[in-house]
Amino acid sequence: MKVGSVTAAIALAGAAAATMAFAQTSAPMNPLEEPITPILPPKQIDIGKAELGKKLYFDPRLSKSGFISCNSCHNLSMGGSDNLPTSIGDRWQRGPINSPTVLNSSLNVAQFWDGRAADLKEQAGGPIANPGEMAFSHTLAIDMLASIPAYVREFRQVFGVDTKIDLDQVTGAIAEFEKTLVTPNSRFDQWLLGRSDALTAQELEGYKLFKESGCVACHNGEAVGGNSFQRMGIIEPYKGSMSEGRAAVTGKDADRFSFKVPTLRNVELTYPYFHDGAANTLAEAVDVMGRIQLGRTYTKDENDRIVAFLKTLTGDQPTFLMPILPPSADRTPRPVPFDN
Amino acid sequence: MKVGSVTAAIALAGAAAATMAFAQTSAPMNPLEEPITPILPPKQIDIGKAELGKKLYFDPRLSKSGFISCNSCHNLSMGGSDNLPTSIGDRWQRGPINSPTVLNSSLNVAQFWDGRAADLKEQAGGPIANPGEMAFSHTLAIDMLASIPAYVREFRQVFGVDTKIDLDQVTGAIAEFEKTLVTPNSRFDQWLLGRSDALTAQELEGYKLFKESGCVACHNGEAVGGNSFQRMGIIEPYKGSMSEGRAAVTGKDADRFSFKVPTLRNVELTYPYFHDGAANTLAEAVDVMGRIQLGRTYTKDENDRIVAFLKTLTGDQPTFLMPILPPSADRTPRPVPFDN
Repeated sequence: MKVGSVTAAIALAGAAAATMAFAQTSAPMNPLEEPITPILPPKQIDIGKAELGKKLYFDPRLSKSGFISCNSCHNLSMGGSDNLPTSIGDRWQRGPINSPTVLNSSLNVAQFWDGRAADLKEQAGGPIANPGEMAFSHTLAIDMLASIPAYVREFRQVFGVDTKIDLDQVTGAIAEFEKTLVTPNSRFDQWLLGRSDALTAQELEGYKLFKESGCVACHNGEAVGGNSFQRMGIIEPYKGSMSEGRAAVTGKDADRFSFKVPTLRNVELTYPYFHDGAANTLAEAVDVMGRIQLGRTYTKDENDRIVAFLKTLTGDQPTFLMPILPPSADRTPRPVPFDN
Repeated sequence: MKVGSVTAAIALAGAAAATMAFAQTSAPMNPLEEPITPILPPKQIDIGKAELGKKLYFDPRLSKSGFISCNSCHNLSMGGSDNLPTSIGDRWQRGPINSPTVLNSSLNVAQFWDGRAADLKEQAGGPIANPGEMAFSHTLAIDMLASIPAYVREFRQVFGVDTKIDLDQVTGAIAEFEKTLVTPNSRFDQWLLGRSDALTAQELEGYKLFKESGCVACHNGEAVGGNSFQRMGIIEPYKGSMSEGRAAVTGKDADRFSFKVPTLRNVELTYPYFHDGAANTLAEAVDVMGRIQLGRTYTKDENDRIVAFLKTLTGDQPTFLMPILPPSADRTPRPVPFDN
């Protein structure tokens, strides 16, 4: 089934959306005028540093228990998230907030929901030493790494032969790996880049509605979000669980319940949604956002269209060889998985 | 430094072992006469089934919490083990016994330390439904998979278009993936296959001692173990924690404290050692085994040699692309990471 223009496609979509798998639609006249821009492949990556960072990202020895790695809660098999409302930390502690996806996180204006880390490097040190997450300490992490000959050699290779492993190197390497975790080539980006048949009529209608009803005011740019802080509950108060939000960082009362706008890239994979993970499905998330942020109640059809559009934001997932971690040496301190 | 024969190498080794990094030694006259045989690459693998099995192996949605996958305790970045004395299960429960490596487990005479599962397929169903491990149920696991369209399609591709996902297929696919997890090409195998300079003199001496002092009576064959059940503590009782062992399966009192002999392939990576994970280092494990199984106290030099030999058993680790898991559908039951 083919239709020749956006208008024709939209006219057909009302009746046929449910059965129309793929329809030719028009590309934007000028993609640069769209409020969403294509994700670009990573540039200026230090490959050696990123490869070391990949090992560290997957190494559970950076946790007290020896069981939790960065990948435990930002699982690269699962959209860079854990798909849980809030995460599981050391001794099965319940995390206070939903783990945001690591995918495209290099595009965020700041890291964590409240933006308390300026960049990926600053973020990477947080969970390692957080008693509710990996529950280790930076000193113990460095001691562990420095005891493993193959790690020492790899740090030397990346940071110089006279290097002594430090936290700056550890978080720098993890951040370098994370910079590679972008997801270009989504169907939406293909459309932005000129493939006019990359979106169905329903998806394109969803995008128009997403723009026209105001979602795009916050969800825009390369990451479709991630570039501003906004209050959760502008029109109506949010009914889910609340945390202080951005106010914890700025100290300003006006920033209470304000959070970093999450990226919508790969949002199909990063359920459940919101800072508290309270919305299990995209349909629910779109409904709540429409009501409390925009004062708009979407019809079932409208909701379906926006969800269809959102699913076009799933890009190429990072694929790479599972890292093989260097074994501990006899003198490497052993993890403490249990307290007695 | 080169030496022309095993005898010459051994004569030199006493003084020079510590500084001798690599020495040319002789290959066995007839490798087929050695009690250890080379690991062969996997044959007759159903690639589609193994690829599906890889996804299942990495999918934490096969656990109640959505947090624990097969790879959590049999981590393929870490020698197919978790490098913990005993594993961490659902709600951070402490496992009763050390997680054996999944590497080369297809070569085992039976699965689990007590051999209670006949093969990999029977084993794979165990942890999923064990309340102390993944704490799910087979029914819930099947319901979860059947709710995810991309899984349904992949099961159809592998098992036939009119298939209905069942446990037999799930465990069969996981087992097929596990069959690929063999580690050929260790330096020891290179030596067995004729590369005479693959082992140092110290390593070769260690192998001779390993044979002559009786270790090889139990640790032999392709997996250097895994092919018999033996009592832990033949000459002296074992001082660590004991579990019933093989008697739990056979009901015979004579099988108390009897365990499947673990493979020594990749033993450098699979610390800590023994069914209770009580030995942190290879030196300690060799010392204890010598005393309680063989009534022999190795000198420091002898222990060093055997450890050097054991480290030659590290083979090529399985390397593969991290699987990308299909996302849950709206109707997919959500994990239960916390009880309230």
